[in-house]
Amino acid sequence: MTETAPTYILTAHCRSVLGTVDVVTRFLYEHQCYITEIQSFDDSEEEHFFIRVEFRNDGANARSIGLLREAFSEDAARFDMHWDIHDASTRPKVVMMVSRDDHCLSDLLYRYRTGHLNIEIPAIISNHPDIKHLAEWHGIPFYYLPVDVTTKTMQEQQVLDLLQQYRADLVVLARYMQVLSPELCAKLNGRAINIHHSLLPGFKGAKPYHQAWEKGVKLVGATAHYVTEHLDEGPIICQQVEAVDHSYTPKRLIERGQDTERLTLARAVRLHCEHRIFLHRNKTVIFEGS
Amino acid sequence: MTETAPTYILTAHCRSVLGTVDVVTRFLYEHQCYITEIQSFDDSEEEHFFIRVEFRNDGANARSIGLLREAFSEDAARFDMHWDIHDASTRPKVVMMVSRDDHCLSDLLYRYRTGHLNIEIPAIISNHPDIKHLAEWHGIPFYYLPVDVTTKTMQEQQVLDLLQQYRADLVVLARYMQVLSPELCAKLNGRAINIHHSLLPGFKGAKPYHQAWEKGVKLVGATAHYVTEHLDEGPIICQQVEAVDHSYTPKRLIERGQDTERLTLARAVRLHCEHRIFLHRNKTVIFEGS
Amino acid sequence: MTETAPTYILTAHCRSVLGTVDVVTRFLYEHQCYITEIQSFDDSEEEHFFIRVEFRNDGANARSIGLLREAFSEDAARFDMHWDIHDASTRPKVVMMVSRDDHCLSDLLYRYRTGHLNIEIPAIISNHPDIKHLAEWHGIPFYYLPVDVTTKTMQEQQVLDLLQQYRADLVVLARYMQVLSPELCAKLNGRAINIHHSLLPGFKGAKPYHQAWEKGVKLVGATAHYVTEHLDEGPIICQQVEAVDHSYTPKRLIERGQDTERLTLARAVRLHCEHRIFLHRNKTVIFEGS
Amino acid sequence: MTETAPTYILTAHCRSVLGTVDVVTRFLYEHQCYITEIQSFDDSEEEHFFIRVEFRNDGANARSIGLLREAFSEDAARFDMHWDIHDASTRPKVVMMVSRDDHCLSDLLYRYRTGHLNIEIPAIISNHPDIKHLAEWHGIPFYYLPVDVTTKTMQEQQVLDLLQQYRADLVVLARYMQVLSPELCAKLNGRAINIHHSLLPGFKGAKPYHQAWEKGVKLVGATAHYVTEHLDEGPIICQQVEAVDHSYTPKRLIERGQDTERLTLARAVRLHCEHRIFLHRNKTVIFEGS
Repeated sequence: MTETAPTYILTAHCRSVLGTVDVVTRFLYEHQCYITEIQSFDDSEEEHFFIRVEFRNDGANARSIGLLREAFSEDAARFDMHWDIHDASTRPKVVMMVSRDDHCLSDLLYRYRTGHLNIEIPAIISNHPDIKHLAEWHGIPFYYLPVDVTTKTMQEQQVLDLLQQYRADLVVLARYMQVLSPELCAKLNGRAINIHHSLLPGFKGAKPYHQAWEKGVKLVGATAHYVTEHLDEGPIICQQVEAVDHSYTPKRLIERGQDTERLTLARAVRLHCEHRIFLHRNKTVIFEGS
Repeated sequence: MTETAPTYILTAHCRSVLGTVDVVTRFLYEHQCYITEIQSFDDSEEEHFFIRVEFRNDGANARSIGLLREAFSEDAARFDMHWDIHDASTRPKVVMMVSRDDHCLSDLLYRYRTGHLNIEIPAIISNHPDIKHLAEWHGIPFYYLPVDVTTKTMQEQQVLDLLQQYRADLVVLARYMQVLSPELCAKLNGRAINIHHSLLPGFKGAKPYHQAWEKGVKLVGATAHYVTEHLDEGPIICQQVEAVDHSYTPKRLIERGQDTERLTLARAVRLHCEHRIFLHRNKTVIFEGS
Repeated sequence: MTETAPTYILTAHCRSVLGTVDVVTRFLYEHQCYITEIQSFDDSEEEHFFIRVEFRNDGANARSIGLLREAFSEDAARFDMHWDIHDASTRPKVVMMVSRDDHCLSDLLYRYRTGHLNIEIPAIISNHPDIKHLAEWHGIPFYYLPVDVTTKTMQEQQVLDLLQQYRADLVVLARYMQVLSPELCAKLNGRAINIHHSLLPGFKGAKPYHQAWEKGVKLVGATAHYVTEHLDEGPIICQQVEAVDHSYTPKRLIERGQDTERLTLARAVRLHCEHRIFLHRNKTVIFEGS
Repeated sequence: MTETAPTYILTAHCRSVLGTVDVVTRFLYEHQCYITEIQSFDDSEEEHFFIRVEFRNDGANARSIGLLREAFSEDAARFDMHWDIHDASTRPKVVMMVSRDDHCLSDLLYRYRTGHLNIEIPAIISNHPDIKHLAEWHGIPFYYLPVDVTTKTMQEQQVLDLLQQYRADLVVLARYMQVLSPELCAKLNGRAINIHHSLLPGFKGAKPYHQAWEKGVKLVGATAHYVTEHLDEGPIICQQVEAVDHSYTPKRLIERGQDTERLTLARAVRLHCEHRIFLHRNKTVIFEGS
């Protein structure tokens, strides 16, 4: 085996029928692709099948990803599969959207800068100018797109234009405090991740930490989820909690919760960019890795 | 210091004013009581003060708990304190109520049998006969009090009679699947702990694990709380979570969640019996210990 | 698909070469076995491959597990695979060994009694008589086999005879406080799980909680591992921790740690009995499930 | 009560004798100081007493911290107390030392910049030039002090000079990969915190993540501790873990572990700067807060 052989990732899902695994593994074998990791899940309730395979294309007859895609398309069609093949070395283009609080953005930028998060950040978009210098220090183009009720439609069009211009694979709402329009949500379906500063469905809506404090909860948490037009109801990716007690003021709850938000969002972005998440109806199937 | 000197626990709460700590510590000093642990909390929002002190009464002039109570009552009155002095060696009498699922009860019985939970269990009450042999094996009187709509008032009176007969300090609803009447809730105010098989306020009401499964959550949890007439809304004592994923069926979620329930309820009972919990309005102030 | 089709589990490992996944999945497809879960791992350092497949044998030509084994043996031989096919509905026979502390045993018995742990417990062996009544209440034969320096060889032979008589698939040392001889360890290789009441390799040897207390650690933990003749050095299966602080006496550390031990051991037994653990050299590869 | 009254923190420890709490609380009462939080611990093994009190000096006769110190010194002398009174609004001066890895430093700088960590960072010292631009962006003087065997004594003198020049209250070794000389350790006793990238005492010395990988552990962790001349043996402040499995390469273990290091070190610095840690012999007593 060649160390430098490219690693590809095949993801597929379809109805549960006999042969779904075989069609994938036989194809890879016949193209001399060595499987380094395979994971599948069969949702017996929905009778739906999910598979993710990492493989090296290092045989004598190594093919390009384009040729592999072409070769697999016929097999996949027989099973009516939703599928793709990704090059693991291609860094997804992730556009960040943020308002004023930069705790999540700072954390993502750190992981980006050090290569721990294997992504490109072609642009940062904000409805406030505050983050400009942080973006600049990282050498990332910054777009200040203020928004109010009257300009919302236009501003969202500017956002969409930027996403197209930069060919964004993913949009991360890293504490972007504006509700996206149903139209924009629909266009970004499955390609936009939000961090909700609470453990859903516990405290939806505004000021969740104040709600938590009022109720005297002993845990605070964060939820990373895909954006849908149903605010705070999108499919959940990751959730995490911190223990708290009576001595936490709302201010301290917020500070403590922000550590959870940073870790939860970073984890969700990583899982998405490693093609580990399947979005199916209102749930996610996630094949964890190291 | 004498190793065998009794350990007492003084708990008090009142309005926040100058001198609340001093009145307690000066009293203990003047009665030659050695403080082994002191914890206070000042709720600046409510302007309310809470204190818990463990002390040994081992001076030459050691007084009985009765005399200490008498001596402190005048001081406490000046500050309009709610207070008590407890003998740490007195094991609280805890009556268990349970339906069919015995995972929480089994755990509590184990801790009781081994002395890890320093309580007495004078009686176990159930609306089903299933637990009888488990109770008997532990040598604990078992009362089978079936209940339906027509007999509820009478059955609850029987429960109350038993609680009085056994001078119960605490009632633990260890998966007792009946809603208590507002009257019974009122009578047990601050003296009855329930385990809710979900992370409140996330999934109230019936079948929380099915709700969690429907929503695709990545954490399941349990909440121990004091019983109030507002079902699932009582003051929270402890909360704990377990990570889960898409592969959990509702049945497996339940099994996994039960471990959390067992630990959460056992912890709540321990905190209560060590006089570490203050119940104030709809919240708890808890001074944790080892 | 038939709901009642039996579920089988195929496990295999061998050198990393092209075709290792294909040989398994093609075999299953050709025998009309529907794969419900597949997981693989490729240890690139050791160039070793591991796979676990759950499948239903529910085609028109459903074969017995015996016929499947026979049919696969030729394929497996070509890859020099270590492999097996298990019937998921067969409950492994797990013999418990214990001394005086029954916190781990009690927990395992609870899970056994309620069916949460899908095992048989044909016998409990102890070098003390204390656990007899607990065993009897669960209707499990109890063997009191005391041991000292002079009788150790003989006692271990009695243990081995019992394991054979009951055709034990697994031995669980649920706080069995005797060191097994190298001979017995060798005979039980990969079939005996121990719980070490500390986070290995932190505090090996005697009184780990006292060692932890001396050192002022802020976490205590437990490690479940396979038994080898190298005491406390066996391949690690699970580890778990609890946060503690300065106020914990060694006695309280022990009590707190025991909760961790119970959960850690139960988890390890479950993973083993679901055929999720591969033991390879001095490490484990574990395919987690719900 | 005046919202703007200053908050002070009194810390004291001494031998366990009757009156240790009373002397503190009576003093505060007589100076009209309102206690907002009091915590004590009695180490019954060592017969040593620890107390921490937060209070507001908001009476009509509010005194300066200097006058309070003077007034308390006589009382404290009678009990042979080690004690101090701190102004909670004074931000401790924390000098950072770092080599090349900036994951811990980045995190601390983030918390410093946002005010979540209430400290001053008057200088950053490094034996490599890499961090210079990060320091400059935060407007913090950066000192590049390279070191080798021949220059170590001189370089450590430069470090000491800088610490004096900036009146450093604390030195944080945020992944500073040089062993300090016993002389420097002695001079910084109780004033220097190190982050050890492993769960002590598990994997001391070099390359702990590789050691952990070799052993196949299922948890990796980090330990924040005070620096002493006994490398990796200093009194433990905080420890934290992350679950890992067989699929983690040493490289991924390191990346995962770094999240733990960041959180653990930040927590330790916060606890120290809030005067919540007592260092006594080789252990810490820590009064946690929100």
